[in-house]
Amino acid sequence: MQCITVGLGERSYTLHVGSGLLARIEQYLAPLAPTALLVACDSNLVSLYAQDCASRLLPLARVGMCVLEPGEAGKDLRAVQQVLDALLDLGADRRSVVVAVGGGVVGDIAGFAAAIYMRGIRFVQVPTTLLAQVDSSVGGKTGVNHPRGKNLIGAFHQPALVLADTDALRTLPPRELAAGLAEVIKHGLLADADYLAQVEQSLPQLLACDPQALTATVVRSCQIKVGMVERDERESGERALLNLGHTFGHAIEALTGYARWLHGEAVGCGLCLAADLSRRLGYLTVADVTRVEAVVKAAGLPARIGGLSAAAAVASMRGDKKAAAGQIRFIVLQQLGKALQRPVDDQVLGQTLAAGGFT
Amino acid sequence: MQCITVGLGERSYTLHVGSGLLARIEQYLAPLAPTALLVACDSNLVSLYAQDCASRLLPLARVGMCVLEPGEAGKDLRAVQQVLDALLDLGADRRSVVVAVGGGVVGDIAGFAAAIYMRGIRFVQVPTTLLAQVDSSVGGKTGVNHPRGKNLIGAFHQPALVLADTDALRTLPPRELAAGLAEVIKHGLLADADYLAQVEQSLPQLLACDPQALTATVVRSCQIKVGMVERDERESGERALLNLGHTFGHAIEALTGYARWLHGEAVGCGLCLAADLSRRLGYLTVADVTRVEAVVKAAGLPARIGGLSAAAAVASMRGDKKAAAGQIRFIVLQQLGKALQRPVDDQVLGQTLAAGGFT
Repeated sequence: MQCITVGLGERSYTLHVGSGLLARIEQYLAPLAPTALLVACDSNLVSLYAQDCASRLLPLARVGMCVLEPGEAGKDLRAVQQVLDALLDLGADRRSVVVAVGGGVVGDIAGFAAAIYMRGIRFVQVPTTLLAQVDSSVGGKTGVNHPRGKNLIGAFHQPALVLADTDALRTLPPRELAAGLAEVIKHGLLADADYLAQVEQSLPQLLACDPQALTATVVRSCQIKVGMVERDERESGERALLNLGHTFGHAIEALTGYARWLHGEAVGCGLCLAADLSRRLGYLTVADVTRVEAVVKAAGLPARIGGLSAAAAVASMRGDKKAAAGQIRFIVLQQLGKALQRPVDDQVLGQTLAAGGFT
Repeated sequence: MQCITVGLGERSYTLHVGSGLLARIEQYLAPLAPTALLVACDSNLVSLYAQDCASRLLPLARVGMCVLEPGEAGKDLRAVQQVLDALLDLGADRRSVVVAVGGGVVGDIAGFAAAIYMRGIRFVQVPTTLLAQVDSSVGGKTGVNHPRGKNLIGAFHQPALVLADTDALRTLPPRELAAGLAEVIKHGLLADADYLAQVEQSLPQLLACDPQALTATVVRSCQIKVGMVERDERESGERALLNLGHTFGHAIEALTGYARWLHGEAVGCGLCLAADLSRRLGYLTVADVTRVEAVVKAAGLPARIGGLSAAAAVASMRGDKKAAAGQIRFIVLQQLGKALQRPVDDQVLGQTLAAGGFT
């Protein structure tokens, strides 16, 4: 088991990464001395993990459970209301704790509910997907979608603790494992070329759920993300680089109703579009772009998604919350392992979208 | 015009108190360099102030308006959704600003919407009621009610600026002016016996909307509140003293569906109950309690509210967000001008409720 400390002053917390954490979850939560615990999960995880977690937590405090609809399509204010109602049913007070067991969707919803219940109570992230372990459970971004855009409603609310149990990844459907690899590849691309090479090399082991390869990957990805969050908690600068591939990815998700593609799949395609854009801006070589597409494909992710409207994608990107005064700011690659943020001309953007199969 | 600085590090801001501020609102907002401005108000204030504000702001940026249902009964998540939708309609981005023109209800709803739109954008409080000027517009508490309790959903989100124009108080219905005086009396009771005496003496001028008396009162009340907020922004200690009279007041509001009594009226009665409780605990004299009741009545507020169930009031107080593990923590008066927080036996609480006309 490895620990990573997220140093954010009074909002600091620890990530535990390794095997067997879920089987002793009560030991990690006991120091929080909660007055009540609400375990939030989605309906796919109730029997797999959440019921067992809830039983283990019973000696600590009154325990309630809130079962959410699975999938990004259910990540809305109604789901938040469901968690708030469950907290009230449980009689939760300011010293109670929300425990989010599941993927990024559950963590985003439950974390946001914790952020606004009685103006903020503590929550614990127990990510059970690779994507949540390497990305969404760390950094305190919580929130839900609005019909007009992704994560438009939310709060920065750091968890009190993150427990990333790599055992949970063994039960993950292959498609979801691949979706998590999109963020892993992103971390290498934007911050660490050596890590990118290591990921390329260990992809077969990662796809086979080799525990050592997974632990090493979760730890390194979390280190990269934690460093950026520590230096820029509220995304006024460097943290925005973590959005590499996401401006495109969010547009793909919005245009397909958050239903057709997993977030990681949309990001995988978004990374390829960002690489193409970076080449057109004179940063990457054709060989670099080919290498990005190759690793995305090798991870089992789509390098291109056809049949979407370029105009609709641009309109969606302009409404993205990273845009300011209608100006879309893109994260591009200066080289493999180094990202930067810059505005992009509509013409170049159009070329990238056309090359990526948008019509 | 007087300025008070709220010193909260990077969340610091300035309160401007005085006459004629609304008539030059654009000068105060220009330094924020907003990309768009949403003026939120309730339907009573559209023609009185909000339309004029919106026109004055037009040279600064794109301006939208969101008209909310007036009154505490409409302070719910649906109203928040209405502001969020208006922000999206306006194409607001992270550099846009919400301007809350109105009383505490508008400020609480619009401030909370600003707190969760794109994980937090700036907002400006333009309080037009005495209650909002001396209390709710300062300190960053935002939020809405849940059917099961007041302000159960919310966030700490400090405004970027507060403009308290005392001219606006001249158009305030007498009942709302009195409701604001409840918080003014509270400030004297909990923190400053000299101020209490000054308020007692100047009540006739305050009720007659004398500009000098009003400005002096708003400034002194804000100074008291700002000091407590600076020392304890997130209410982990001293700030809780500002809840003097509010545990009772919130129960009265909940039991009457947030409709029969104004917040300040419920607090006025709550102050008398808190004084009675303080006497039963051995802190205040009978003369002190009589004096509290006298000033509350002289301000035009109810010193007692009959016909409510004591059992229902206790149940409501146990669900209050200041309660922990079902233990109600009360703010009581050690003496006039000094408050403290302590748990209270159910028996003593029952005596106070019975004496206060609860059945």
